[in-house]
Amino acid sequence: MAKISEHYVLIIPKDVARWLGYDDTGPRDAWKIGDQFINVNVTSESHEASLLWFLWYVRQCGGSNRIMSTDNGGQQRKFIGGSQQISERIADKLGKDKLLLEHAVCSITQNDQSMQVSCLNGEVFKCRHVILAVPLPLQTRLTFDPPLPSLRNQLIQRAPMGSVIKTFMYYDRPFWQEMGHSGAAIIDDEEALIEFIFADTKPDGTKPAIMGFILAGRARKYVTLTKEERRDKICKLYAKVFETDQALKCVHYEEQNWLAEQWSGGCYTVMMPPGFLTTFGREIRKPVGRIHFAGTETATEWSGYMEGAVQAGERAAREILFDRGEIDQSEILKDEPENEFVKPMPFPTTFFERNAPSVGGLLKILGCVSTLAVACSGAIFYRRFKT
Amino acid sequence: MAKISEHYVLIIPKDVARWLGYDDTGPRDAWKIGDQFINVNVTSESHEASLLWFLWYVRQCGGSNRIMSTDNGGQQRKFIGGSQQISERIADKLGKDKLLLEHAVCSITQNDQSMQVSCLNGEVFKCRHVILAVPLPLQTRLTFDPPLPSLRNQLIQRAPMGSVIKTFMYYDRPFWQEMGHSGAAIIDDEEALIEFIFADTKPDGTKPAIMGFILAGRARKYVTLTKEERRDKICKLYAKVFETDQALKCVHYEEQNWLAEQWSGGCYTVMMPPGFLTTFGREIRKPVGRIHFAGTETATEWSGYMEGAVQAGERAAREILFDRGEIDQSEILKDEPENEFVKPMPFPTTFFERNAPSVGGLLKILGCVSTLAVACSGAIFYRRFKT
Repeated sequence: MAKISEHYVLIIPKDVARWLGYDDTGPRDAWKIGDQFINVNVTSESHEASLLWFLWYVRQCGGSNRIMSTDNGGQQRKFIGGSQQISERIADKLGKDKLLLEHAVCSITQNDQSMQVSCLNGEVFKCRHVILAVPLPLQTRLTFDPPLPSLRNQLIQRAPMGSVIKTFMYYDRPFWQEMGHSGAAIIDDEEALIEFIFADTKPDGTKPAIMGFILAGRARKYVTLTKEERRDKICKLYAKVFETDQALKCVHYEEQNWLAEQWSGGCYTVMMPPGFLTTFGREIRKPVGRIHFAGTETATEWSGYMEGAVQAGERAAREILFDRGEIDQSEILKDEPENEFVKPMPFPTTFFERNAPSVGGLLKILGCVSTLAVACSGAIFYRRFKT
Repeated sequence: MAKISEHYVLIIPKDVARWLGYDDTGPRDAWKIGDQFINVNVTSESHEASLLWFLWYVRQCGGSNRIMSTDNGGQQRKFIGGSQQISERIADKLGKDKLLLEHAVCSITQNDQSMQVSCLNGEVFKCRHVILAVPLPLQTRLTFDPPLPSLRNQLIQRAPMGSVIKTFMYYDRPFWQEMGHSGAAIIDDEEALIEFIFADTKPDGTKPAIMGFILAGRARKYVTLTKEERRDKICKLYAKVFETDQALKCVHYEEQNWLAEQWSGGCYTVMMPPGFLTTFGREIRKPVGRIHFAGTETATEWSGYMEGAVQAGERAAREILFDRGEIDQSEILKDEPENEFVKPMPFPTTFFERNAPSVGGLLKILGCVSTLAVACSGAIFYRRFKT
């Protein structure tokens, strides 16, 4: 696959290199790529996120190849016409009279007999069960009667939503493609506001565009600029990355600043800080009375993605079926059936990947190497002092 | 001052030892006491809190002596009759018709002309300015129109309230005093639910009691027990600490589980995680339109304490006076006048404290020591190989 200009080709590990279509790997800054891998996957900085949680996050998406791949992986598919259509079709199916928009909930009251949900607009609803499918930090917006259990009251304060501004730069022509480049790149520049870009031209070749992520700390830094200032900075960056002034001549710019979103708090998903999983992990999807918790944050596979939201919603629905005596407890947690149209294929692995030592094995090897190194230094010392 | 049983005397650094009335210091586990110092001061674990923030927190309370001291420091005074009297007396002064209890606010709307505050109970108020004096994470309970600026929208998700259960064990007689103990102790036991205790007998000698803190991770661990189970565990712990069965015979037990508090979120104050101050620090007390932010979390001295709440409230009030053209901008930030009745006195310092090297100096010393150590090892190697 085509490469971007030499100045901006990162020499990166095989997993990520393959995802970007690079075949050449070599010496590089492992810490930096680690940070960028965290930035792009969970829109947080490595000094904020729990490593245990991040490793879980990558694992529950099938590993580092699966989560990052635009081919045979998590970044593979888009919806022609946009994914908003899913919500619209479900709304049609449900009947729009059953779907209440602009009804922000402000309190949930429950006792043994009944439940009551009150909205900011003053409307009140009675119900038998509630499924709360909003991100953890947004649950702090609700007043609960009785109050939430202690751990849940503290849990929802401790997992903030990530930070990302998603940007789209539109051009007359896909100049990167004409130059032989794929349009996908990791930008290795501390001063650059964008770290990852993808070509985002429509499947029929119209509307040539580059999608770029402003991630984590950079999102919080550059969010204080105006939209126009960000557009100009990004154009200049792309001109540097592709080494052409054509990148300066954008015809349109769109962005979605998720940091400003009051009703989601951020994007893509929650960030769990050090100690969170071990302290609060078991509470994330534990029902509180007849309040059940869905939302992609409560999924056990593809949490953070749409697939996770579906899994979590179905699990929460089955919790209610169980409460109503309609299914057995053992049926609540169920694996999602494999998608018949998009089957995940195994990734080719290298000899090293198949034969790499475990952590224990690696420590033993390092131990031997250290002992050898000390012995060698001793010998060198001895020779120097002796001669 | 009296000591507790040998088994539970921690050998601790001078600052903390002096606070507890110990004069003897010696070898100890520096990490452990560091953790306990963080636990008791900010009710969080060292793996959660930002070190920069923690150091700031201790500094803005006048340093480690001032923040911890029960004599000439932050832990010195209590209110006979309880500190709730302050609120009650202010309420009397204000006139109780001006103070609305049970009016939880759920939204704040502002435009150039007016502001509107809506409550969960449906009541709506018009006003010219709002001072929001609730902890940062509780500000997520409100719906803002227009929405908060991006950084503030993310800030309030990122500073959770700490975790503590404050316990009071009442006895017939102050057996610890009769044994010659002060009743204050750090309990150095991984399995103990309580880390810090203080005698809490009334000034007239009635109601002998021991106050104990269940802190940070331990609060989250032991909050799942019932109140009675905690009482029994604490009695057994005190019996072990003081080496007497008298501790088992409590006459009453009270506790305040701050983790369960929906309207504060936790206690004593917010915990700022790594990266928070450098990213969001400047936003903490920046007004949003005519919404001004008070509360002890926004103070610059004794933040986390009642003194900080007073400083922050007065500063927010002066912001409004400035907005109304009644004072100059330079008058907004003002040092609190020194309390005439409780003057902070300097602490006696040791020779080492006065002459300790700076971080730079210390690194230089360590550098020399390391070079010497390497040279010595070389010499030893040489001697061993030679002989």
